[in-house]
Amino acid sequence: MIRLNHHRFQSQHSGDFRSVDESEKIVRKLVGAGEKEQFIFTSCGAEGVAHVMQSALFDHIYPTGKNHIITTNVEGADILLTHQRFEQMNICSHVVPVNSLGQLTPDILDLYASPRTALLSISWAHPLTGVVQPIWELAEYCKEHGILLHVNATEVLGRQYFELRDMPIDFLTFDGPIGSGGLFVKERLSPLIPTGDPQVLRGGTLNHEALSKLANWAQELMESRDHVCMETARLRRRFEMQFGEGLLCSSERLPTTCAVAFPGVSAEALLYYLENAGLSATIGGGDQQKLEYVLGNCGVDLIAARSAVSFCLSSKTTSDEIDRAVSIIQKELMKLEKIAGSLLEEADV
Amino acid sequence: MIRLNHHRFQSQHSGDFRSVDESEKIVRKLVGAGEKEQFIFTSCGAEGVAHVMQSALFDHIYPTGKNHIITTNVEGADILLTHQRFEQMNICSHVVPVNSLGQLTPDILDLYASPRTALLSISWAHPLTGVVQPIWELAEYCKEHGILLHVNATEVLGRQYFELRDMPIDFLTFDGPIGSGGLFVKERLSPLIPTGDPQVLRGGTLNHEALSKLANWAQELMESRDHVCMETARLRRRFEMQFGEGLLCSSERLPTTCAVAFPGVSAEALLYYLENAGLSATIGGGDQQKLEYVLGNCGVDLIAARSAVSFCLSSKTTSDEIDRAVSIIQKELMKLEKIAGSLLEEADV
Repeated sequence: MIRLNHHRFQSQHSGDFRSVDESEKIVRKLVGAGEKEQFIFTSCGAEGVAHVMQSALFDHIYPTGKNHIITTNVEGADILLTHQRFEQMNICSHVVPVNSLGQLTPDILDLYASPRTALLSISWAHPLTGVVQPIWELAEYCKEHGILLHVNATEVLGRQYFELRDMPIDFLTFDGPIGSGGLFVKERLSPLIPTGDPQVLRGGTLNHEALSKLANWAQELMESRDHVCMETARLRRRFEMQFGEGLLCSSERLPTTCAVAFPGVSAEALLYYLENAGLSATIGGGDQQKLEYVLGNCGVDLIAARSAVSFCLSSKTTSDEIDRAVSIIQKELMKLEKIAGSLLEEADV
Repeated sequence: MIRLNHHRFQSQHSGDFRSVDESEKIVRKLVGAGEKEQFIFTSCGAEGVAHVMQSALFDHIYPTGKNHIITTNVEGADILLTHQRFEQMNICSHVVPVNSLGQLTPDILDLYASPRTALLSISWAHPLTGVVQPIWELAEYCKEHGILLHVNATEVLGRQYFELRDMPIDFLTFDGPIGSGGLFVKERLSPLIPTGDPQVLRGGTLNHEALSKLANWAQELMESRDHVCMETARLRRRFEMQFGEGLLCSSERLPTTCAVAFPGVSAEALLYYLENAGLSATIGGGDQQKLEYVLGNCGVDLIAARSAVSFCLSSKTTSDEIDRAVSIIQKELMKLEKIAGSLLEEADV
């Protein structure tokens, strides 16, 4: 099986069992957290998102009376559904469009934000298109306009350099290996899972084992970050150059991820053929929107969007794997074209 | 170290790695869940409590306009704090008193319930006093009066026989080994952690490993339940008979748990001496209320309440351990009395 994306959340080795303090230190280092940021270990990324929403509600929306929150139309289920829920509480949740580069810019945000806007929730980078949001600009806009900023950083961990301590981000959440995730927060916040100890921000006994696994994963991400940002980025370019015309999203992207359109081909059929030939790829779905809809929301035309497949490389991907992946894709595309051709011939008869 | 309570959440062996289906089947069997009950695997007991509260809010309180919820004054932090939070949303949270047996009866409930009451949250048994609530009677009262019933069953698992399928309990939550817990629910409910798949009631990837550990723990509890309800109950009686006068809470109790008062002695001091002599006991605190306050809320007088210590046996406790525990307690009590005596003498001089 050729897998471009050696599963990102699976550590190669279970690693050392680390102390709570050491584990937290490593995770803090990964995101460049400073003294001001509090770290809350969560059972998954979605818990962190739910926690942010709860805190926004109790610590900001109710006390200030601001009753408007914003997210974008390319987000995953965790953010979209938590926002949706707020409507039951008479809080206006606005799903705003991204531009043709797949980005939310301060200009677009300015069209929708108002003095009643309490929160913007956004993923730093998109898992299927790899598009990176202009988080610095958005953070500055939010700070200027008194809007809280929640960033889901799952996709950029180990794939971008940043120092949370220098950025005006109020909430940073991310998903980790199974049973783990995290939330960094600048201000004190209400717990999602209540706790008797006011020093503790999440109820339940700390899952030390899962925290230690998260730390080992974070350590691996830090160790491979240089490689990912240089060598993997180079391999990704080499890969996508083979599909020049079909390449989607020309904005800043993750070094690992690309979405490619194969006009005239059904993405579902191609995905099936690729998986059978041992190449793993994705068209979204599940807790993510389908790639087709995400691309549609970026203004990609329907025919291209419906033929698009997303590929993801990892720090383990080799140039040999890239070559084999390209040759599999070309071979399977030819098979599909042949089938399409013979169907057309039959139709002619 | 003599430990009456071999740690309940620590399995003796890590056990087999079980499939998701098999694991769920075992956990269902432990509580006697039927077809109607849905099971949600949670990351801890407190998450289940938070989930129930969220569901009560979105699925019942908002749609029906009922804005009154009830719990008792002997609950732990998870339930009390989640209830407290509702007051921020103009929902009236009522903490009602238990009687001198430590129980909430339908009669007491009737004094506080109204047609606006949406929910009663209560722990089936108290972790420090062992007092078991009359859940059947409460469940019938709630059903008759259109009140949802949430029961925290952590303490009764493996210590009481019950079949959830036969009982009108709307929400049953429990804590498991670290990283695990559960929620059984009769009606469809809104997720606490959002998910894109409407068939799934909790977001985030399922922690299969933690679920399998929960199943192994549940299996152990079922296997030792007969022993706990017969032999451990006998040992507990033998233990507490040594402290006849000091025995607190004469109502129905768990077979494993007893609180004993040692009037004239400070519970903190005794606890310290017992721990040093290798006998583990507790006076509460942390996510539980202090035993002193719990007993005060049951009408126990202040001097007795302040001298009370809680002991907990497990299926592994032997009669030899009971004898050694009794002798340690007697020896340490004498030491404390001697110190008190010499302090009095000094005061006379």
